Amino acid sequence: MNMNVSVIGIGAMGGGIARALLKSSDINSVIGYDVSEELTRAFYEEAQTVSKECSIGEGDNGIPICVEDVILPNNKTNVLILVLVNEAQCQQVCSSILSTNNDDKSLGSMTIVLCSTVRATWVRETSSQFEERGIAFVDCPISGGPIRALAGKLSIMASCNDEHVLTSLRPLWKAMAGEDENIHMIPGGSGMGSTAKMVHQLLAGVHVVCSAEALTLAAKAGLDPEQMYKIVNGAAGHSWMFQDRGARMIQSPGEEVKSALN
Amino acid sequence: MNMNVSVIGIGAMGGGIARALLKSSDINSVIGYDVSEELTRAFYEEAQTVSKECSIGEGDNGIPICVEDVILPNNKTNVLILVLVNEAQCQQVCSSILSTNNDDKSLGSMTIVLCSTVRATWVRETSSQFEERGIAFVDCPISGGPIRALAGKLSIMASCNDEHVLTSLRPLWKAMAGEDENIHMIPGGSGMGSTAKMVHQLLAGVHVVCSAEALTLAAKAGLDPEQMYKIVNGAAGHSWMFQDRGARMIQSPGEEVKSALN
Repeated sequence: MNMNVSVIGIGAMGGGIARALLKSSDINSVIGYDVSEELTRAFYEEAQTVSKECSIGEGDNGIPICVEDVILPNNKTNVLILVLVNEAQCQQVCSSILSTNNDDKSLGSMTIVLCSTVRATWVRETSSQFEERGIAFVDCPISGGPIRALAGKLSIMASCNDEHVLTSLRPLWKAMAGEDENIHMIPGGSGMGSTAKMVHQLLAGVHVVCSAEALTLAAKAGLDPEQMYKIVNGAAGHSWMFQDRGARMIQSPGEEVKSALN
Repeated sequence: MNMNVSVIGIGAMGGGIARALLKSSDINSVIGYDVSEELTRAFYEEAQTVSKECSIGEGDNGIPICVEDVILPNNKTNVLILVLVNEAQCQQVCSSILSTNNDDKSLGSMTIVLCSTVRATWVRETSSQFEERGIAFVDCPISGGPIRALAGKLSIMASCNDEHVLTSLRPLWKAMAGEDENIHMIPGGSGMGSTAKMVHQLLAGVHVVCSAEALTLAAKAGLDPEQMYKIVNGAAGHSWMFQDRGARMIQSPGEEVKSALN
């Protein structure tokens, strides 16, 4: 597949993914969209430094900032990745695409890859709606945080009602996840990827909470939280979240928040 | 220090520790004690294959199997490690030693290292009782499981009312834990090591429970537990316990239980 990718949502995760795609020789063009013009401008400038087609020539100063640009007839995007903060944002963007007139059939050659964490039931319904319009839809939640997103080393959990679509996107999976062991094709059709992510996320959430409880308990019991941090990271109580989030829990307050629920 | 070590309790963890000590050139002799004659006999035979003094010549067939043997006047043990299943067993052995007449002062040169998981309050009281008798006492819980015990790669969390004792036992720590990053000297006196272990153990316990919940939820939601296991182990939901215990959770029933609470 001759891949011309657009990424809607180029914040912490999407921005990392879009930049990882810039490095792939299998991908022709990468365009980043966001409600923040600051983010799109920064990405546009970065994209121009590599030998990639990176502008669709729409919007002020040639910087594409509107979601609607993706579905203009002269946009050659054939892989559209959504990396939005929550399901409400995904609903808004998906509705916007679904309500577009598709007179020139340009949408028919598009595959939508949804990377946000959303309900499996919603993604299943939405998947069907796109398929009725002839648009392939991949339910593809991700894990790994901004650092692994930027490094192209995310874990991906992709499911689709048409498994051939998953196979055809292999260059995309390689660019996003790197090694095969990070690429998980979940059988059972659209929604099963999001189900796997939900199970994973429950674990991740429990680990964040119990990391905070453990470090607080240690401090209150007279232990040095930094020493406790080292002990746990080398012992059977270790978790990825304790190592990652625990480091920031024992830092002095005032650190920039890197992710949030809303 | 010219170390002649006895290990009381040579099951999954203690047996591994005793065998790791056999490999240390800093330790003269290692004797393993257990209520199970099968375990002591196996260890005795293994110890004889290395160039170590490994019998005190007491007990039937030269195999020492009674805790009391450790405190006989002609026993040259100067480091006594307790690796018992629970606090009740530790109480029994410590009472037995504390109630011994010490006419020849042989106990005075002994350091007791308690590796079992016990209450910090109890270990603090017991530590004082030994110190009143002139016996050094180290509160030294461990983590890592039988495989790391045998490899001499445990995490240790040692605390003592006399910090010089901790320093003098350095060859023991190296033999049990290998690298410096596994050796944690916890300040604050006896009991603080057990406090650190308690915090660690809460995390480890939560991780075992939520691993089981996650794998069960995955199976009930129609996901393949083996694929879920792979996803989590490469993603931000990873924990040491999920990787270790999770592997056995998805095996067919009937696997041998390797540790138990009682």
